[in-house]
Amino acid sequence: MDEVIADVMPNFLNQYEFKFGRRPDKEEYEGSKVFDIEGAGDLWDNLHQKGFFSDLPVMTDSQKVLIELHKRFDIYIVSAAMEFRNSFEDKYDWLQKHFPFIYWKNMVFCGKKEIIYADWLIDDHVKNLENFKGTGLLYTASHNVFERRFERVNNWKEIHQYFKDK
Amino acid sequence: MDEVIADVMPNFLNQYEFKFGRRPDKEEYEGSKVFDIEGAGDLWDNLHQKGFFSDLPVMTDSQKVLIELHKRFDIYIVSAAMEFRNSFEDKYDWLQKHFPFIYWKNMVFCGKKEIIYADWLIDDHVKNLENFKGTGLLYTASHNVFERRFERVNNWKEIHQYFKDK
Repeated sequence: MDEVIADVMPNFLNQYEFKFGRRPDKEEYEGSKVFDIEGAGDLWDNLHQKGFFSDLPVMTDSQKVLIELHKRFDIYIVSAAMEFRNSFEDKYDWLQKHFPFIYWKNMVFCGKKEIIYADWLIDDHVKNLENFKGTGLLYTASHNVFERRFERVNNWKEIHQYFKDK
Repeated sequence: MDEVIADVMPNFLNQYEFKFGRRPDKEEYEGSKVFDIEGAGDLWDNLHQKGFFSDLPVMTDSQKVLIELHKRFDIYIVSAAMEFRNSFEDKYDWLQKHFPFIYWKNMVFCGKKEIIYADWLIDDHVKNLENFKGTGLLYTASHNVFERRFERVNNWKEIHQYFKDK
């Protein structure tokens, strides 16, 4: 969900700017996370606040590509939400609002994603793909740009292309 | 979760009594659900209310048996909670309170359980066991007493016994 269909980066960057009075350079958080920048660790705490996940922008093209794939595949939205008790309602409402064609039967909030059984998993986190039994696709995010172990998709147009003949 | 580690029946029976002024006989809901009794369909709506899942009694022996099994197995609590948006926080808090040894990484809220990958699934619903890839154990509940297709466990002592040599 986050960094694949929901764009959390603007929120992190806004919070950094609010704290430090400037936008961080991309080089400062490439290969890691915004809250890994020295001194910015407490930005992580904001993830536990109600509302953080409620107004995230939708990732470009994710809606129209998922509507398309939804006709041919049984699509699940799986979010590692369990670390953030206050995110559940925000995430659920966000999905209902932006992806109304995804029925509640096909939503999952979990912790470790190794419990998930599916043919493909599109994820920005290598740790989630490492133990996945199907085929993992790494969705490009600032924190994974130096990763080489998984097939990479850079945007939803590439996902559309990947599944064209599947 | 419900009817396996969380005992929802007392809540249903209380609500029926509140509405009809009497406790229903077991024969009235055996093989089905309390809200399937004629005229009681709107009791189902209570599942959507905040608080319904917050004070459920813990199923007898489930804590001590799970603490024991937790030493030898990677235990996940998987709840088909997605139908009930207002249940998430109640269910999460209930689990933290009564099963604090189950880490958030091992909790799952989902819709269809066929997305779950595990060796065993203990569930009161046949529909969840039907599409499960591992071994399903049917936990006895009033609504499944006439079911014959799955190995049955009647209580947590029997679950303890079942996994003794596994």
